[in-house]
Amino acid sequence: MAYRVFKFGGSSLADTACISQVAEIIRQDPNRLTVVVSAMGGVTDALDSLAQQAVQGNRSNEKQQLETLRQRHQGVIQELTAPEDKETLAGDVDRVIAELATIFSSVETLGELTAKVHARVVSSGERMMASILASVLRSDKLDAQFLDATELIKLHKELGSLVPNHEKSIQQVQSVLIPRLNQGQTAIIPGFIGESPDGDVMTLGRGGSDYSATLLGSFLKADTVTLYKEVDGLLTADPRYVPNTRVVPELHYREAAELAYYGAKVLHPRAIIPLIPQGIPLIIKNTFKPALSGTLIAGDVSPGAYPVKALTAVSRQAMISVEGNGMMGVPGMAARTFGAMAQEDISVSLITQASSESSICFVVPQKEAQGAREALERAFKYEIEFRLIDEIKIKRDQCVIAIVGLGMSGTHGIAARAFQCIHHKEINVNAIAQGSSELNISVVIEENQMGPALRALHREYRLNRIK
Amino acid sequence: MAYRVFKFGGSSLADTACISQVAEIIRQDPNRLTVVVSAMGGVTDALDSLAQQAVQGNRSNEKQQLETLRQRHQGVIQELTAPEDKETLAGDVDRVIAELATIFSSVETLGELTAKVHARVVSSGERMMASILASVLRSDKLDAQFLDATELIKLHKELGSLVPNHEKSIQQVQSVLIPRLNQGQTAIIPGFIGESPDGDVMTLGRGGSDYSATLLGSFLKADTVTLYKEVDGLLTADPRYVPNTRVVPELHYREAAELAYYGAKVLHPRAIIPLIPQGIPLIIKNTFKPALSGTLIAGDVSPGAYPVKALTAVSRQAMISVEGNGMMGVPGMAARTFGAMAQEDISVSLITQASSESSICFVVPQKEAQGAREALERAFKYEIEFRLIDEIKIKRDQCVIAIVGLGMSGTHGIAARAFQCIHHKEINVNAIAQGSSELNISVVIEENQMGPALRALHREYRLNRIK
Amino acid sequence: MAYRVFKFGGSSLADTACISQVAEIIRQDPNRLTVVVSAMGGVTDALDSLAQQAVQGNRSNEKQQLETLRQRHQGVIQELTAPEDKETLAGDVDRVIAELATIFSSVETLGELTAKVHARVVSSGERMMASILASVLRSDKLDAQFLDATELIKLHKELGSLVPNHEKSIQQVQSVLIPRLNQGQTAIIPGFIGESPDGDVMTLGRGGSDYSATLLGSFLKADTVTLYKEVDGLLTADPRYVPNTRVVPELHYREAAELAYYGAKVLHPRAIIPLIPQGIPLIIKNTFKPALSGTLIAGDVSPGAYPVKALTAVSRQAMISVEGNGMMGVPGMAARTFGAMAQEDISVSLITQASSESSICFVVPQKEAQGAREALERAFKYEIEFRLIDEIKIKRDQCVIAIVGLGMSGTHGIAARAFQCIHHKEINVNAIAQGSSELNISVVIEENQMGPALRALHREYRLNRIK
Amino acid sequence: MAYRVFKFGGSSLADTACISQVAEIIRQDPNRLTVVVSAMGGVTDALDSLAQQAVQGNRSNEKQQLETLRQRHQGVIQELTAPEDKETLAGDVDRVIAELATIFSSVETLGELTAKVHARVVSSGERMMASILASVLRSDKLDAQFLDATELIKLHKELGSLVPNHEKSIQQVQSVLIPRLNQGQTAIIPGFIGESPDGDVMTLGRGGSDYSATLLGSFLKADTVTLYKEVDGLLTADPRYVPNTRVVPELHYREAAELAYYGAKVLHPRAIIPLIPQGIPLIIKNTFKPALSGTLIAGDVSPGAYPVKALTAVSRQAMISVEGNGMMGVPGMAARTFGAMAQEDISVSLITQASSESSICFVVPQKEAQGAREALERAFKYEIEFRLIDEIKIKRDQCVIAIVGLGMSGTHGIAARAFQCIHHKEINVNAIAQGSSELNISVVIEENQMGPALRALHREYRLNRIK
Repeated sequence: MAYRVFKFGGSSLADTACISQVAEIIRQDPNRLTVVVSAMGGVTDALDSLAQQAVQGNRSNEKQQLETLRQRHQGVIQELTAPEDKETLAGDVDRVIAELATIFSSVETLGELTAKVHARVVSSGERMMASILASVLRSDKLDAQFLDATELIKLHKELGSLVPNHEKSIQQVQSVLIPRLNQGQTAIIPGFIGESPDGDVMTLGRGGSDYSATLLGSFLKADTVTLYKEVDGLLTADPRYVPNTRVVPELHYREAAELAYYGAKVLHPRAIIPLIPQGIPLIIKNTFKPALSGTLIAGDVSPGAYPVKALTAVSRQAMISVEGNGMMGVPGMAARTFGAMAQEDISVSLITQASSESSICFVVPQKEAQGAREALERAFKYEIEFRLIDEIKIKRDQCVIAIVGLGMSGTHGIAARAFQCIHHKEINVNAIAQGSSELNISVVIEENQMGPALRALHREYRLNRIK
Repeated sequence: MAYRVFKFGGSSLADTACISQVAEIIRQDPNRLTVVVSAMGGVTDALDSLAQQAVQGNRSNEKQQLETLRQRHQGVIQELTAPEDKETLAGDVDRVIAELATIFSSVETLGELTAKVHARVVSSGERMMASILASVLRSDKLDAQFLDATELIKLHKELGSLVPNHEKSIQQVQSVLIPRLNQGQTAIIPGFIGESPDGDVMTLGRGGSDYSATLLGSFLKADTVTLYKEVDGLLTADPRYVPNTRVVPELHYREAAELAYYGAKVLHPRAIIPLIPQGIPLIIKNTFKPALSGTLIAGDVSPGAYPVKALTAVSRQAMISVEGNGMMGVPGMAARTFGAMAQEDISVSLITQASSESSICFVVPQKEAQGAREALERAFKYEIEFRLIDEIKIKRDQCVIAIVGLGMSGTHGIAARAFQCIHHKEINVNAIAQGSSELNISVVIEENQMGPALRALHREYRLNRIK
Repeated sequence: MAYRVFKFGGSSLADTACISQVAEIIRQDPNRLTVVVSAMGGVTDALDSLAQQAVQGNRSNEKQQLETLRQRHQGVIQELTAPEDKETLAGDVDRVIAELATIFSSVETLGELTAKVHARVVSSGERMMASILASVLRSDKLDAQFLDATELIKLHKELGSLVPNHEKSIQQVQSVLIPRLNQGQTAIIPGFIGESPDGDVMTLGRGGSDYSATLLGSFLKADTVTLYKEVDGLLTADPRYVPNTRVVPELHYREAAELAYYGAKVLHPRAIIPLIPQGIPLIIKNTFKPALSGTLIAGDVSPGAYPVKALTAVSRQAMISVEGNGMMGVPGMAARTFGAMAQEDISVSLITQASSESSICFVVPQKEAQGAREALERAFKYEIEFRLIDEIKIKRDQCVIAIVGLGMSGTHGIAARAFQCIHHKEINVNAIAQGSSELNISVVIEENQMGPALRALHREYRLNRIK
Repeated sequence: MAYRVFKFGGSSLADTACISQVAEIIRQDPNRLTVVVSAMGGVTDALDSLAQQAVQGNRSNEKQQLETLRQRHQGVIQELTAPEDKETLAGDVDRVIAELATIFSSVETLGELTAKVHARVVSSGERMMASILASVLRSDKLDAQFLDATELIKLHKELGSLVPNHEKSIQQVQSVLIPRLNQGQTAIIPGFIGESPDGDVMTLGRGGSDYSATLLGSFLKADTVTLYKEVDGLLTADPRYVPNTRVVPELHYREAAELAYYGAKVLHPRAIIPLIPQGIPLIIKNTFKPALSGTLIAGDVSPGAYPVKALTAVSRQAMISVEGNGMMGVPGMAARTFGAMAQEDISVSLITQASSESSICFVVPQKEAQGAREALERAFKYEIEFRLIDEIKIKRDQCVIAIVGLGMSGTHGIAARAFQCIHHKEINVNAIAQGSSELNISVVIEENQMGPALRALHREYRLNRIK
């Protein structure tokens, strides 16, 4: 017990200096530690791009790019790895690079890039990195060993998608990973991948290596999972729009998920889910400033003095409204509206219906707006024809701002302050929603007022002083 | 052209004095006028109650009650109708009363009260009243004639319910009603009823005689429809909770529908619908203070100086929330939630989902809350079992307050003022929704704070001075 | 144990002489006997017709017809019942007749004849008859008592229809009927009716009083159920077409059901069903020739020397065929064909599809043929348009002859003899089916060849000698 | 006009001698002739097998087998093709073989064999053959040209499968093929393939090159389509069981489809369908005995002197029966039975239900029997539990014999003779069906009696003398 999981992203593994820093962090306390790694910075994108080019028969730069990849890995091997591993590792990298060339050639020949081949290609970066990092650690007397994620994370098909098979994966973690950890090994595992029921390597999809880390954390019943990134933690607001943003020191899972929903770059909300049932804390830290405490995300975080913890905003949204007096009091309008959206696979964010069912409005990404309108026009063909529903309206260029904080629930006047301060900026609010979870208040405003609104709200809730 | 429809409710036709007043109003301008009448005040309820008693075999009071009904109608006939009609009308009333006794006897014998027989019984009040009122008017030289609603309002079955057959009804109005109006007749028509495809009289259901009047208004392409009631118009708020309420002078259809949705006693929202496509104005006036201008409801009403026009509130509501991080970003949670409600025929009022799809909340009448929870637990059985959804929560004893006014859309700060003033009263807001129609802001609060909240908001928007 | 059920039909209870004969039969062995009776011959039809006329307001003959009914029952009472019952019974009959007049009057007044009122009217014949017969038996020292079927046969709703609630009915039979039988009473019970969950009398529908008898037989776990009718038993063929028909002495349930399916006049197949699970024998006897052994229907009847036991024929049928090479080998054509029929509630009798699924044919009553074609054209719209299916064909004026006998299974050449003998008559066979139950061979021929075919087959299988 | 299509199968193109024979046939009348070719005998199977081995990484024999394929084609090129083409063709074949080796190597590398790659591999045999045959014909002064099927047969997706896009294909045939034919060219086209909407070569599936030929025949509105095979035509019965079988000289499309349904080796029923709408005759001839007239299949074939034209039999079938008196007269039992089969994708052949709906029986391939039973038990769970349906029965080891001939309809006694002769052999008939199309009588018998039954019937209908 007392297992921990660290995960290092690509930017934390970009070159020799970075990798040394990573090794330094691990060495602080390698006991019962599982380390999940991404590929070296830029490697996954490069491999994906080469695969896409191969299927188009466009392989002119391939040789040179593979050589670059080879040299980046060989460089790390020469400088950092254990002397006794150098030859083997160098041979492995050469072999992987050669194999990639063969695969790209086959892809070109057959003119197809299947999901299976794609996974095999893009996962090679993580695998090389994990092997190398294990040796780097061994060079400093750590018993660190590469362990392939395909041995641990087993996938199965559910409703047509490959998803983790918890039962089987837990069995593997118990029989393969835990004994090694208990014997003092530090396990270095490539992120982003698992094994399909047919025994093929497959990628995990949304959430990537972060998801690998939190899955392993849950399978291990770990004490903590730490995601090392190149940011100090989750911020109170987007620094491109707001000066004086701060790292939020503590967040509840649900606050974090809410922030992650629109700000997927730092953390995908899917990566939080595996930790929730067991209440395992998730820590976001900066690889290059390990002394900073980062952001702690957990289930038992108290609201604290700051009822509002962060602002999040997403632009390029469209607000769709279905209005019609003809439907008043007739059950089923909401069901049909969202049924039409679900059928088209359009994810709906803010929803609001004020009192009667005569009008319902919701937000979708702007690029889905036209499809949403058409789906609704099909679904309500009869009602539109008989004027029970007036036309389906779209307001484009909208932005949703969410004011997030579990503490709002016990504090009067949060909403009043929000509207007051938006009002003072003469910003018009197109829709408002605050749900019973009292976790956030969301407002829809015109996109071009996003910056002023964020700045005003950030100041209002004194988020520049959060701690 | 220039047709008008007046409708007088039961309280406006309660006795000789009332009926004289009604006749006086009609005489002011009887030209091209169609008058829809309810039964004399109390008559419909009395007939319904006698029918219900007959089917139970409990007819001990029947004779006396029928005699009371007979005398009320005969009194009006003796005092007010044209001398040449008195004998015929008196005979008609006696005949109707006798027929009702026969029907009740048959109902008792057979032990069943079918919808058809019920309609026949309860509609007899409207029919007697219409005949009598026509004669009252004739006694003052008006060419007023009784015209049965079954000749005009034809019903057909749609999706299992009897609803007006517009095409056929318009044909009837054009061939039967309009020629009479054009010849100078004033048509007196019993409200509440229409004719089934089998030729039976049937009641119109929700909206009653008001609905008859607005249907006829739309079939006639009338200039206006006026509903004469015993109130001065639609009020700024419920006077039981708020002192100094005022009549709202003008409302848009949608504002009125929104108010009507929760305050069905004055006006059922269904009665507004027939007027919307053609933009026919609807006027609510007080029969006994005809000089007051009442409330005008139309499609081209300008917002005016008062962005908020009225408050409406409904208590005994429950707020239901479905929360779960596991569903984040997966399309279809809203569709499934409201699909479950529609299947159980539960009408949903305020809905809110703040930004991510991880939590959705909505309001249902408190008595439906348990059924709603069970339906959701069935619908999300799998997700609850695997903890993708936390439990379905119900907050009981809630009240929804809607702040209604189309002008809110162009005026900054309405929301801010609302929350500011609720905040000052230390009232906690459990959910907020403002849709794109910008017609209302709705808040969910604890039921026991309804009065203070209404009073504070009424003062805040200075609704005691509306004009 | 050793309970028996007798049922006497209307023709067996047509007048004083008949009823004496019935009483005589019962007196032979009244022990543990339950007697189910129909109304006096013609009474049910007369009551139904009076009710139909009342709803039309056509009651001119009613008084006279009710008087006739009254006199028929009073006559029996005067001549046959126990002296001490005469006054009571006579009063009861007068009361029932008066009540019927009141009901008809109410039905006329309300203009509706609901299922509930109809059941109440038509069941009064059975009830009077049961009361009278009990007294007739008492006049000869038998302890015979009227017992109302509503106390025994309890109905509930299943899939929208009222059907017997076995569990509840068995409880009633055990607590109400069996104790009386065990005390030496003979129970006289009106047939055709049961009690709805609301406590109303309702008719049992298809199968009528025979069904009452077999239901009670099964609830009682009776030794036998005997249906006394005015025929000698089930015949080898329809005597209108075939000379020298004979009573079939013994039949298996399934043979009887097969014969009953097309010849519902003597026995509705539904009446056989309750007896099957417990294997209770059913006997069809002639009330007026009680010495004849009639037809015994049971589950353990051996095939005997006559592999073919009877012929049955139904005319006014249409044969429908769906043909199309385009559907060959594609699963689902049969499902869609019969799905279309089920949706239209069209009962399909003979079905045949020879080897490939390129053509399927089946028989429906001629009056359903057009509806069947239209349903199929809708169901196969696409396939017809693209000529995957040629048009849907109907052959009218067809007749289905079934050659019935369980013994056919073990005897070679039955089919050969059938076709040989039809062939010799130069009768063309339009379709043939023999299923695995080897219970019957069915052929479809032109209606005008029914007589010759039946006669030839009857001769071929020597059915004129069956015993 | 006057276009014709010939198709030569692989056995007709097995070696130099065969191909010379094919060329000889074409030369007889090359005018407006379209020739569809399979690959050289055995080539398609060899390619498929190599592809399957490559994906397993088992390529040890590949080189040798590709060399054999190369030599077979080179041999034909050397011996038979036009001198001026030899070098090009030889180069083409070498290139195809080399490309196949590259593809197999890529398939091995990637470990996947997609449908697209498989089609590309297996179609190369047809393409080489078509090129070579064109040159063989040119060597004898014919203007024969290779034309790729991907230019003519365009596919699109319908209900999830790729099927011919008639509209587009007809456009291509009119703009690409017909002008060439009209200029005196003979078009030599590889069979078995078409082009997907993405521009990839795809195989046509069931019916193969025969289907290519009849599709092109229909697109061309050809006068005739001739399929050259290594058999004399369709036979009166399977010669393995019946001595003295004969070629059936003429068959109606439907007779042929019926025979093809169970005897798919000579002709797949799907290949007949394209010709039916336009009534284009299909001829089956023997490449090596071109003087024999073979079998003519058309829509206007007269029944002729032989009402029965052929027998067909299929063994390893199971007969399933659903029996239950509880369902009698209730619509929908057939629909539910076959609905259950369709849902499981089980193709049902002979169906029979004799008169009442109390028992229905049908035949499925024996390997589907258990699945069918389980599906029925699920579908009739309730009815089985309440004993409305007795258990679902399966009779295994059954054989369906179909006696096929359109002339049966006008001829009495066909059925009688069938049953008489089966009866004389003491063969028991388990089920019989003859549909309204009067095209066939089908009987289900025990599998081990198939030979005797076929021989007896063949003799009975004197099929050994058909002409």
